[in-house]
Amino acid sequence: MGSVVALAGQVGGAKLADGLYRLRQDRLTVVVNTGDDYEHLGLAFSPDLDTMLYTLAGMASAVAPWEPESETHAVHAMVKALGGPDRPIHGDRSLAAPLLRAQGLASERSLSQITAAFCRNLGIAARVVPMSDDRVRTYVETDEGNVTFQEYFHELSCEPAVRGFQYAGAEDARMPDALLDALHAPDLEAIVICPANPYHAIQPILQVSGMKDLLKQRRVPVVAVTPIVGGRALKGSAGKIMRELGREPSARAVAAQYLRLIDGFVLDTEDSALVESVRSLGMEVVALPTIMRTLDDRVALAHEVLDFAANIRVRREAEVE
Amino acid sequence: MGSVVALAGQVGGAKLADGLYRLRQDRLTVVVNTGDDYEHLGLAFSPDLDTMLYTLAGMASAVAPWEPESETHAVHAMVKALGGPDRPIHGDRSLAAPLLRAQGLASERSLSQITAAFCRNLGIAARVVPMSDDRVRTYVETDEGNVTFQEYFHELSCEPAVRGFQYAGAEDARMPDALLDALHAPDLEAIVICPANPYHAIQPILQVSGMKDLLKQRRVPVVAVTPIVGGRALKGSAGKIMRELGREPSARAVAAQYLRLIDGFVLDTEDSALVESVRSLGMEVVALPTIMRTLDDRVALAHEVLDFAANIRVRREAEVE
Repeated sequence: MGSVVALAGQVGGAKLADGLYRLRQDRLTVVVNTGDDYEHLGLAFSPDLDTMLYTLAGMASAVAPWEPESETHAVHAMVKALGGPDRPIHGDRSLAAPLLRAQGLASERSLSQITAAFCRNLGIAARVVPMSDDRVRTYVETDEGNVTFQEYFHELSCEPAVRGFQYAGAEDARMPDALLDALHAPDLEAIVICPANPYHAIQPILQVSGMKDLLKQRRVPVVAVTPIVGGRALKGSAGKIMRELGREPSARAVAAQYLRLIDGFVLDTEDSALVESVRSLGMEVVALPTIMRTLDDRVALAHEVLDFAANIRVRREAEVE
Repeated sequence: MGSVVALAGQVGGAKLADGLYRLRQDRLTVVVNTGDDYEHLGLAFSPDLDTMLYTLAGMASAVAPWEPESETHAVHAMVKALGGPDRPIHGDRSLAAPLLRAQGLASERSLSQITAAFCRNLGIAARVVPMSDDRVRTYVETDEGNVTFQEYFHELSCEPAVRGFQYAGAEDARMPDALLDALHAPDLEAIVICPANPYHAIQPILQVSGMKDLLKQRRVPVVAVTPIVGGRALKGSAGKIMRELGREPSARAVAAQYLRLIDGFVLDTEDSALVESVRSLGMEVVALPTIMRTLDDRVALAHEVLDFAANIRVRREAEVE
């Protein structure tokens, strides 16, 4: 059984990563988007990293998986009472990681080191690695100007029409050593792009200096799982953003986004009619139930995705011979 | 009805200040010890300021008045789970002020401005003023070396024998404008030293540059209320510290500590036998019930203390004539 690298962000990404984790344990490395990181009240928020940690540790809320279960809001209520900012609202437990992260960064520890320590303490055997220890910030180009993703999401409620994205700092951002090690591991079996918004969850990862080149030098299959099912994003604003960018919100459009990077694409059984159309882009395609409502769903999808990658690998090796 | 300035720290100080506040509302200025302030997890803790704010806002816990009522510990539990420090333990609500304070200080706002904003937002009409906007730190000289008061209290559990105190930074610390204004107010009627540890709650205030001289130029009576009743500190380690410093832990020893600074001293009715002995130090003395169990107790003691000061003033004016 080989090792796996997953690229992930958001709740969908965390769910599939969780399925992969149950199958691969310490042979899984998850590379997480940090383009949406932000500072608030002096704390260092990394929403996608924390969603991943809570999910892999089995402590994520079922209804709001970006925060720990049984979240309370005592700090926020008191911050408001003292005249502090009303938004964004963070639960009490959700403040602990950003608090320790801000302190760690102020003490010159890297985001990778801080995240690895969180994993150790939470008993997570997988390696969770930020896409870079350097600062990258995703900006949304809108009709009303450029804003950070957090402003777009929290303050503007995703309302302004999106014209494009910028990944400030990505050009000069370096990949963490743990990620390079994982991508060069002799037992690497597959690279999985998890279901998440292609523009502000996966693209920021791909924009990190050297990342795409390294993925293209792949000796193993790269497979992506659609975040769009039946023309709708399962979560969040991907559908709306695709329309505003002039693209049909479909699994095919997501596959096209990853063209020349991936070997295989997983779309949902609901979109089986699109299989041929996506295949014509020049990649292998499979239709699977991609909606993960339970832990069993996550494990089942992870299993199928790794099988899909293994089959691609076998076929590719047969072709070489 | 004139204005009042109170010097305070700790829980006892906050209780008497609360009594004075009920009587004088916006004509009360409370000067609070900041020598015990400390940084933890990047937050700026001011224990005596926060105890005062919670008390005057009517939100202090009855059993642990240094924190808001109904305190929870979700952040601390999560900080521990992530591998953060186990001590000191802070409740969730108790983190809000240190969080906003750290952010305010980082934005070049003064501790006075930050505290005034907290008062406004909590609906506290009195002015709560830190003894200085400059950094002063109380160090405890012990048999085991010099430690901050927070280390002595939290980490060493007040165990090492005390040899003395240092108030680092006090010499160069300036009084905030709001304090100078209050001490120069034409309607100033009395200055009250609230019941609190003389060494690490009141002395740090008195050591701020120019403070003692300004108090000695008093046009109004300065009266102090004992924190020691029947040879025991009502709260905390004052009795132990006094013994280690070679002083009898008594109301008389506290009065002696304030010699040449105060005009009147309030000891507890339990210590009525000491009245003559304290009077022989050269100050007016009155015995009153000083133990404040209820809000009524606070108001009653505040009323008696202000009456005592008024009587001193009347007698002094009669002497001048």
